[in-house]
Amino acid sequence: MEFKAVEEEELTPWRSPLARALHRNRSLIYAPYLQLAIVNLEGKPTNRTIVFRGFLEETNQLKFLTDSRSQKVEQIEQNPWGEACWYFPKTREQFRLSGRLTLVKANHPHPQLHQARQTTWQEISDNARQQFSWPHPGKSRVEASSFELPLPKSVTPPSNFCLLLLEPSKVDHLELRGEPQNRLLDQSDSSKTWSTQAINP
Amino acid sequence: MEFKAVEEEELTPWRSPLARALHRNRSLIYAPYLQLAIVNLEGKPTNRTIVFRGFLEETNQLKFLTDSRSQKVEQIEQNPWGEACWYFPKTREQFRLSGRLTLVKANHPHPQLHQARQTTWQEISDNARQQFSWPHPGKSRVEASSFELPLPKSVTPPSNFCLLLLEPSKVDHLELRGEPQNRLLDQSDSSKTWSTQAINP
Repeated sequence: MEFKAVEEEELTPWRSPLARALHRNRSLIYAPYLQLAIVNLEGKPTNRTIVFRGFLEETNQLKFLTDSRSQKVEQIEQNPWGEACWYFPKTREQFRLSGRLTLVKANHPHPQLHQARQTTWQEISDNARQQFSWPHPGKSRVEASSFELPLPKSVTPPSNFCLLLLEPSKVDHLELRGEPQNRLLDQSDSSKTWSTQAINP
Repeated sequence: MEFKAVEEEELTPWRSPLARALHRNRSLIYAPYLQLAIVNLEGKPTNRTIVFRGFLEETNQLKFLTDSRSQKVEQIEQNPWGEACWYFPKTREQFRLSGRLTLVKANHPHPQLHQARQTTWQEISDNARQQFSWPHPGKSRVEASSFELPLPKSVTPPSNFCLLLLEPSKVDHLELRGEPQNRLLDQSDSSKTWSTQAINP
């Protein structure tokens, strides 16, 4: 994972506490796992575990991976709002990161995002890459042999590989270990200036 | 926690795997923590960690606690759909439980739910009860002394104590340890008959 906690600290009040939580929970292999809620085409909530892949360079956008064939892609295309809930068991703290989602599919027009999609593909593990060759997720199960495929090449991502970005505009940080508990709410206004408020847990 | 895995097994295909996951992860004090997604008044998703409190007796409804002053209560009153995402780190499996939420506030008209609210209050720990005496959650932080209050009585719940029930109608169970991974989708129809389908991870 790549952190730029020091550089970014001045920009947002929540980057540094989040970097600290990740560091203090680093012995748990599932520390980078969090739950992303979005809204489906019927206006109902959906929620799944996803893996944090670091920040998009020189931004405060969290990076995730997804398959363009997965249901969440069409849901995000219709309603681009997400709230990630990230609980860190070791330090007993929770971050709720709410904001706009951006999907970076193949042929994304923005050159830097296009490049970031390619770089991310190159950086991830063979195992992570392999999953993008699997049969259509969510469809009726096909036989196991359909999952046994040669490793995809690491240079160019397949067309179904998507980078998913979350740009938080509100971050609610709860520390259960406080006295009695501590809770800070960071919010950014339309000019992306952040303010912090202590609130009751 | 109270489980009736054996009795209920015939009713729903997901109770038994869920009871097994809870059992196998019981050494983790945070195994009963899961993330509940709902939709707010603006149609955006919200997501937070909540604690599983067992099943409502003789039903397949999951029990949680909430404070009637918390924002999620008015959100649920407007849109009663929720999706809980429950990741079990030790066995590397995820349950996504999607369904209708029921709030059981003070003076709930249904006698059994009214009773369940009272019984749940009596069963929880002093610490859990104490939080319902705290100042208004989410409002500007008040001084620490406002949190130092005598323990609430354990007989009758305070008016802001709510029981929250989730009745799943769809359960998506993913085992990351499968070969390559296993994923089962259980769905109930309008007559509450469950069917199970193996799907691609």
